[in-house]
Amino acid sequence: MNEPAQLLPDEHFMREALKEAKYALAKDEVPIGAVIVSNNKIIARGHNQVELLKDVTAHAEMIAITAAANHFGSKYLTDCTLYVTLEPCMMCATAIGWAQISRLVYGANDEKKGFTLISNKVLHPKCEIKSGVMAEESSMMVKEFFKTKRNKT
Amino acid sequence: MNEPAQLLPDEHFMREALKEAKYALAKDEVPIGAVIVSNNKIIARGHNQVELLKDVTAHAEMIAITAAANHFGSKYLTDCTLYVTLEPCMMCATAIGWAQISRLVYGANDEKKGFTLISNKVLHPKCEIKSGVMAEESSMMVKEFFKTKRNKT
Repeated sequence: MNEPAQLLPDEHFMREALKEAKYALAKDEVPIGAVIVSNNKIIARGHNQVELLKDVTAHAEMIAITAAANHFGSKYLTDCTLYVTLEPCMMCATAIGWAQISRLVYGANDEKKGFTLISNKVLHPKCEIKSGVMAEESSMMVKEFFKTKRNKT
Repeated sequence: MNEPAQLLPDEHFMREALKEAKYALAKDEVPIGAVIVSNNKIIARGHNQVELLKDVTAHAEMIAITAAANHFGSKYLTDCTLYVTLEPCMMCATAIGWAQISRLVYGANDEKKGFTLISNKVLHPKCEIKSGVMAEESSMMVKEFFKTKRNKT
């Protein structure tokens, strides 16, 4: 018997994005994770791999967007929600816009590099933005990471 | 006998970027090409592959940045010049900033999606920008591409 489809809350998917951030942390990367959801299901995941790949473009969101496009065989991700633990930078926000992602949910604000410090215009005009979802967990993880880094050097 | 190192003009490298744009055109992609130059030598190339890869992140500049990082085994591309036939979008401009590329040379302005319409702030503060190099060739190629596309539909 099929269970009736139940709309899962944003916290459920953000918890999955936080799991991705933990994978990044385990590899000594800045702990940022992302998942992309379509029809109440995760269809792509990504975590920051800038150091591993030695590639500034390997942000969690970029990896998830490429994976989601591969999943659908389509460059457009309309009707998808991207969950990311930290506010996207302008590179990722513009990619989210190019992909026409219709909903963006993020955790903590990025007070240095967040796209909202510059412009929302790069997103699709109809993209709905929700911020602050489980922000504390995300923020703590990033702060702790940099604190540990500073103490090592 | 070694020839004395002669600094090649920007037009020389932009011609190489235009070659890349032509490769994109031959694959029915929006014709945009890029090369990255270090010490007077091309160390990475890229052309737009958004349609082939069905991936909005596959812009010429992004592909060239990843290739250059692979070349050096380093995420930072300080002392490199990126040549691109069309003004970068905000995604690519931010990636150029993350990679700390010190010089950006582009051809035609992108009057719809060019990063200068939004902000220069995403580039490295010391990044030198030069625009309009062989702009006519670049612009004509893109305009011709879209004209042909419109006539087909």
